[in-house]
Amino acid sequence: MKNKKLRVAILGVTGAVGQEFLSILEERKFPLAELKVLASERSAGKNVKFLGKWMTVQAAAPESFKGIDLVLSSAGATVSRRLVPEAVKAGAVVIDNTSAFRMDASVPLVIPEINASEISKHKGIIANPNCSTIVMAVPLYPLHEAARARRVIVSTYQAASGAGMKAMRELEEQTREVLAGKKPAPKVFRHPIAFNLFSHDSAIREDGFTEEEYKMIQETRKIFRTPELKIVATTIRVPVLRAHSESIVVEFERPLSEEEAKKILQKSPGVEVVDRRKENYFPMPIEASGKDNILVGRIRKDPSSENGLAFFVSGDQLRKGAALNAVQIAEILFS
Amino acid sequence: MKNKKLRVAILGVTGAVGQEFLSILEERKFPLAELKVLASERSAGKNVKFLGKWMTVQAAAPESFKGIDLVLSSAGATVSRRLVPEAVKAGAVVIDNTSAFRMDASVPLVIPEINASEISKHKGIIANPNCSTIVMAVPLYPLHEAARARRVIVSTYQAASGAGMKAMRELEEQTREVLAGKKPAPKVFRHPIAFNLFSHDSAIREDGFTEEEYKMIQETRKIFRTPELKIVATTIRVPVLRAHSESIVVEFERPLSEEEAKKILQKSPGVEVVDRRKENYFPMPIEASGKDNILVGRIRKDPSSENGLAFFVSGDQLRKGAALNAVQIAEILFS
Repeated sequence: MKNKKLRVAILGVTGAVGQEFLSILEERKFPLAELKVLASERSAGKNVKFLGKWMTVQAAAPESFKGIDLVLSSAGATVSRRLVPEAVKAGAVVIDNTSAFRMDASVPLVIPEINASEISKHKGIIANPNCSTIVMAVPLYPLHEAARARRVIVSTYQAASGAGMKAMRELEEQTREVLAGKKPAPKVFRHPIAFNLFSHDSAIREDGFTEEEYKMIQETRKIFRTPELKIVATTIRVPVLRAHSESIVVEFERPLSEEEAKKILQKSPGVEVVDRRKENYFPMPIEASGKDNILVGRIRKDPSSENGLAFFVSGDQLRKGAALNAVQIAEILFS
Repeated sequence: MKNKKLRVAILGVTGAVGQEFLSILEERKFPLAELKVLASERSAGKNVKFLGKWMTVQAAAPESFKGIDLVLSSAGATVSRRLVPEAVKAGAVVIDNTSAFRMDASVPLVIPEINASEISKHKGIIANPNCSTIVMAVPLYPLHEAARARRVIVSTYQAASGAGMKAMRELEEQTREVLAGKKPAPKVFRHPIAFNLFSHDSAIREDGFTEEEYKMIQETRKIFRTPELKIVATTIRVPVLRAHSESIVVEFERPLSEEEAKKILQKSPGVEVVDRRKENYFPMPIEASGKDNILVGRIRKDPSSENGLAFFVSGDQLRKGAALNAVQIAEILFS
């Protein structure tokens, strides 16, 4: 990163990803000249801690972005659609962690390990992919580069954190209630989450796929620049706090042995191979939580297709799946 | 069922499936002349309740089966290998819920909704399939009959109950500990199960597949009488108490529309279609728990393969996945 210190605003700072932005800026010693913490009217006046100091959250408004160089935005697609263009008008670059602009052809959709070269093409907005897309794409891309993926079959095991801080608290509270013999009333999620799982709570499209599944399909194609890549996804919410896991089966154009795949993944950035068969030790969400890398294991030939490979991944949904990926983009953008 | 009342022994009565045998025999008013409750030396002397009366558990021994017509066996493969042949010698028919005899060519492996006609071919032993096999096979078979399955890609979300009663208690206790801020020490499972998930804790084969995955593959082929059926399975343990869920993608030989698939499943025995897209209401393990039917939903065309279909199922692992299926076999056997 250049010596220049940046004036940064976090939009949606009180949310789960917003809080993670604060931790990651601290951890990575991001060069800040100024930090503005913004959220909805409802959260204005709350305090958040950064580098040991309390900061007062301000209500985000079109005027909030005057003099700001970089906006890290994660306040929902509706807020982004309203405020991100204002931030761009004010001269800021926005890294937006909502679905608002991801599929806009003029907006780069970036995972630095895969398509960092897209960053410089931005016109004010760079989109951060959906968390379940990132967790799959980081380990899949180096394999795709080696053997060219033709079809991907993925089933997810998604943590409560994907639905925000309130959803994480709901998982804990409901679990306490169930253990006390009570019947919990779901509030954030539509269905009980304690000791349960259910299809991802996004809208169902005409074709029967959830919006979450559609994001995984469309975003992966855009990031890989493979509009023809076939993907079928099933997205499931599980009673886990903050890391997403995914069971992935891929058909490649060219043969890819288990050994080759492991070797490729071992030297791929953003990936950590956890594949100790004798100990039955593979990626687990509690171990992926708090880590930068996506854990990948259960790497094996799929005997049910010609050039098939199966594997299982866990990745911190709030870090690499959201805040960390956005900060990594910012680091490249201003380097 | 004929009027004849049967002398029945339950082998492994103190286990999770053993307890479920008792409930199901009660519920279904199974015609009993005598009930013998057997378990390991360690459990002998314990009491179990049946039809409101306490019964004392006896240590299972080769002599235990004298005069017994039917043995419902679920005490693990090692015990079955030792005692089941003794029970057969004593003149009993054994319905065995372990992996000991499932792949034995002379032993019928039966799911009554699929291959009840195999029952009469038994030579003393009838094998009950693995729970995750049953939960997949019951809804898959009628679709296979309609359009012929060529390849199945399945990822499981398996409940703690599959590892027995102690595993269910461990899930509850560990969860309490985590909520109290403690770090739990796994005992039954190799890894923490509270708010976590991990690859199924069975041995890993040379080819990288778990024994659980191998069971799903081999048993389904035997039950469907399709040795050529291609299956790739990924089996994952999740923090759910007693119903298994599975994300299933199938490639068929012939086209099968979403509507046709739904119609077929709606009239298939052992299956209940739960597929309310507008309400985002699909199969969930807490709703499958205690039910006889396998819940099936998220039924949709898979656009990533020619005649593809995707769906999601939840089924009570202890009931249809184990004890109920065995009792249904017994009902046909003695009818």
